[in-house]
Amino acid sequence: MTSPVSNSARSYSRTHAEQFRQELHQLLRIPSISADPAHADDMQRAAAWLANHMRSLGLDNIQVMPTAGHPVAYGEWLGAGPDKPTVLVYGHYDVVPAEMADGWHTQPFEPVEKDGKIYARGATDDKGQLFIHVKALESYLKSSGSAPVNVKFLIEGEEEVSSPNLVPFIKEHLELLRADVCVISDTSMRTMDEPAILHSLRGMTYLEVEVRGPTDDLHSGLWGGAVHNPALALVEILGKLYNPDHTIAVPGFYDDVVPLTAEERAMIAKTDLSEEQYKQSTGVTAVWGDASYTIRERISARPTLDINGMWSGWTGPGPKTIVPAKAGAKLSSRLVGNQDPHKIYELIKTYIDSIAPPTVKVDVKLITTGKAALFPFDSPEMRAAARAYEKAWGATPVFTRGGGSIPVVAEIADLMDIPVVMMGYGLDDDGLHSPNERFSIEMFHRGVETAIVYLEELAQIRQ
Amino acid sequence: MTSPVSNSARSYSRTHAEQFRQELHQLLRIPSISADPAHADDMQRAAAWLANHMRSLGLDNIQVMPTAGHPVAYGEWLGAGPDKPTVLVYGHYDVVPAEMADGWHTQPFEPVEKDGKIYARGATDDKGQLFIHVKALESYLKSSGSAPVNVKFLIEGEEEVSSPNLVPFIKEHLELLRADVCVISDTSMRTMDEPAILHSLRGMTYLEVEVRGPTDDLHSGLWGGAVHNPALALVEILGKLYNPDHTIAVPGFYDDVVPLTAEERAMIAKTDLSEEQYKQSTGVTAVWGDASYTIRERISARPTLDINGMWSGWTGPGPKTIVPAKAGAKLSSRLVGNQDPHKIYELIKTYIDSIAPPTVKVDVKLITTGKAALFPFDSPEMRAAARAYEKAWGATPVFTRGGGSIPVVAEIADLMDIPVVMMGYGLDDDGLHSPNERFSIEMFHRGVETAIVYLEELAQIRQ
Repeated sequence: MTSPVSNSARSYSRTHAEQFRQELHQLLRIPSISADPAHADDMQRAAAWLANHMRSLGLDNIQVMPTAGHPVAYGEWLGAGPDKPTVLVYGHYDVVPAEMADGWHTQPFEPVEKDGKIYARGATDDKGQLFIHVKALESYLKSSGSAPVNVKFLIEGEEEVSSPNLVPFIKEHLELLRADVCVISDTSMRTMDEPAILHSLRGMTYLEVEVRGPTDDLHSGLWGGAVHNPALALVEILGKLYNPDHTIAVPGFYDDVVPLTAEERAMIAKTDLSEEQYKQSTGVTAVWGDASYTIRERISARPTLDINGMWSGWTGPGPKTIVPAKAGAKLSSRLVGNQDPHKIYELIKTYIDSIAPPTVKVDVKLITTGKAALFPFDSPEMRAAARAYEKAWGATPVFTRGGGSIPVVAEIADLMDIPVVMMGYGLDDDGLHSPNERFSIEMFHRGVETAIVYLEELAQIRQ
Repeated sequence: MTSPVSNSARSYSRTHAEQFRQELHQLLRIPSISADPAHADDMQRAAAWLANHMRSLGLDNIQVMPTAGHPVAYGEWLGAGPDKPTVLVYGHYDVVPAEMADGWHTQPFEPVEKDGKIYARGATDDKGQLFIHVKALESYLKSSGSAPVNVKFLIEGEEEVSSPNLVPFIKEHLELLRADVCVISDTSMRTMDEPAILHSLRGMTYLEVEVRGPTDDLHSGLWGGAVHNPALALVEILGKLYNPDHTIAVPGFYDDVVPLTAEERAMIAKTDLSEEQYKQSTGVTAVWGDASYTIRERISARPTLDINGMWSGWTGPGPKTIVPAKAGAKLSSRLVGNQDPHKIYELIKTYIDSIAPPTVKVDVKLITTGKAALFPFDSPEMRAAARAYEKAWGATPVFTRGGGSIPVVAEIADLMDIPVVMMGYGLDDDGLHSPNERFSIEMFHRGVETAIVYLEELAQIRQ
């Protein structure tokens, strides 16, 4: 059952559905591409638009806060009072690049509604999803003048470039941001009837390996046969990263992995992918990996070690008969709780150093890290989210692990000591980061209602 | 002892040394870069310069002969008569690219004489070396009006781009080119006091391997863990090319290799490189290879299989978290007699197909081939060459195997059924294909005298 207050907020959200979307269109029209310096002004415009919009809804303490990179848009409504919980909504207004030439059917920064979807860059990632929470709060404030909990918005502009300035920002503004729970809508579900609450994200250790042999590329005829080809040496090293059973061969790699419980495996099984589905989605001829785990477990709950790039010698057309001077590879490991990214880096580096042959020089270099996040899914905040889906979405959600990485999730949890609830309203096939990114209109509106009910459910866990 | 005729030719070559070099400078000034279409006119100019020069010396039947690519410059002097042997001199007027930015100290196409060397692109490879034979014939014709043997010049313009049109050209003009022996000066010796006659060159099988997995690059977070990373699959395949003892693991690879005789190994030992010398020359930290053979044997008399290039996924700066859609490598095998390049290709392809995992698609593609050449070093033509060095160079030559490949050598031998004698007048450290390519002035002039005496020695083997 929901209360009259939330019911009137839900009712408001329905009668203002069209207006909500027109406002979202305004935000989607700003090409806030964080990776492209040419769009620096658009980043400012998007942050200012959000600030002005929050101000128009009656939020307080509105700020466009500078960072070393793009600004943060901040706003809060603390009218529920100190006895009520405070929710921190995290989202990001920046988007990845988009150009017609990539295969868009319509202008990426001119939103088009078609077949029940909004097509635009950022529609699902993350402007549309973060807007759900803005509209949920608005629906309370405009219908009954008040919301059941306090709400703070932290909307950054650098998520798509790995949030380089967010951790310092959070550390500097811990008091301002203080909250009881963080809610993020920046993920997706498999189908509309299978809402998913993520309670885990994978972390990351990204590194580079370089193998150097001769000072310069050598003429393979004049010198070939007595030099250890650096590309071959690299190949020999990389070939030892995995065991024949497709587990990772780096000693100690799995030591800190929190084992999956039977309960969790049962839950993951609800969203499993068949071999056929996986092949269909990726185009591979066969699945691969550690046979002790299901496909969904492998791609979300188990750590990986992938070659992301590799290079050596001549890669242009035709033949060039050299022994290359060097060879290199980029490697990254998706990590799960409680693997420490820096410890994993040290383990991989130590292992590679130990198998590096004396015939070449091998350097291992850390590129970037991100912590994995793993939250218990039986916490009050998680259970409240599940109830919100049941009441407002109309389906019982599954708790799932996300295979990707949003490094700031673990950082927020660690720095602020609060749980993070990931209530994604996207669909797995929304085409995020791809041409013709889209966001389901129905899911947008159902999302607003679910977010409305979630605020009420959160208020109740403190009663 | 040499005859009065050759003595007067040698004398002529000495008194005209300065003029010879000034003429060579003219040829070196033409930037006849065969790989660069922008230099097509220069290719014509170089061929025409050679034709005009041969005409001015009294050669006959001068022709600039078209091919599907750059033209061949042809000229002959048949005044010795049908009872005397005919020598076919092969050389090439094309050069590899050169730019100041590569590290040249002087303009690559403005020859500079300094410290006893001529610095210019093509100085040693091959304009300077082919010019030795032109000047040797001139020295006979201008001093005594006649030479001891008939001489034909076949000077092509596509050696540096693998002579794609030379075999058809030879087939079409077998009668015109008919000769008893082919002489090529396009190789080098270790030091000036160690002249070397090459009786062998390595052949070549060049191929490309491509491994394809998913249709497109995959997000490593969303899909990683259940897909066989194509870069890893490639690494696993390439890692199986060699055995732990550094021999090549492709079944049948060594089957047709003509074993080295004790006599030949003794001869090769005379030019062996110490581990220290090899490390010094290449910059590697240690030598590598099949320990059953010496370093010189490995780099000249034994076949190899090298990775010449390798690529996959993201190779730019920073991280990109993908499972690449594909990975590829260029591989080439230096072959020795009697390995057949096409058979070797089939063996490698069959082997790779046999070890390719079912989780990816693997394609093996032939890029180019070249036959190895191996001639007996006790033939009359070879012995004549050795005598020429003893009499004119002043040192007994070693017969050595060249590690590189001049595919046309085997083709000439096969198509024309004649021995090919490789009398290289370069030095191993002439910097061919590198910045500041150079050619020793003293060796140029000693080369002309050796070539003069060689013509006389050749005349005698038919007496």
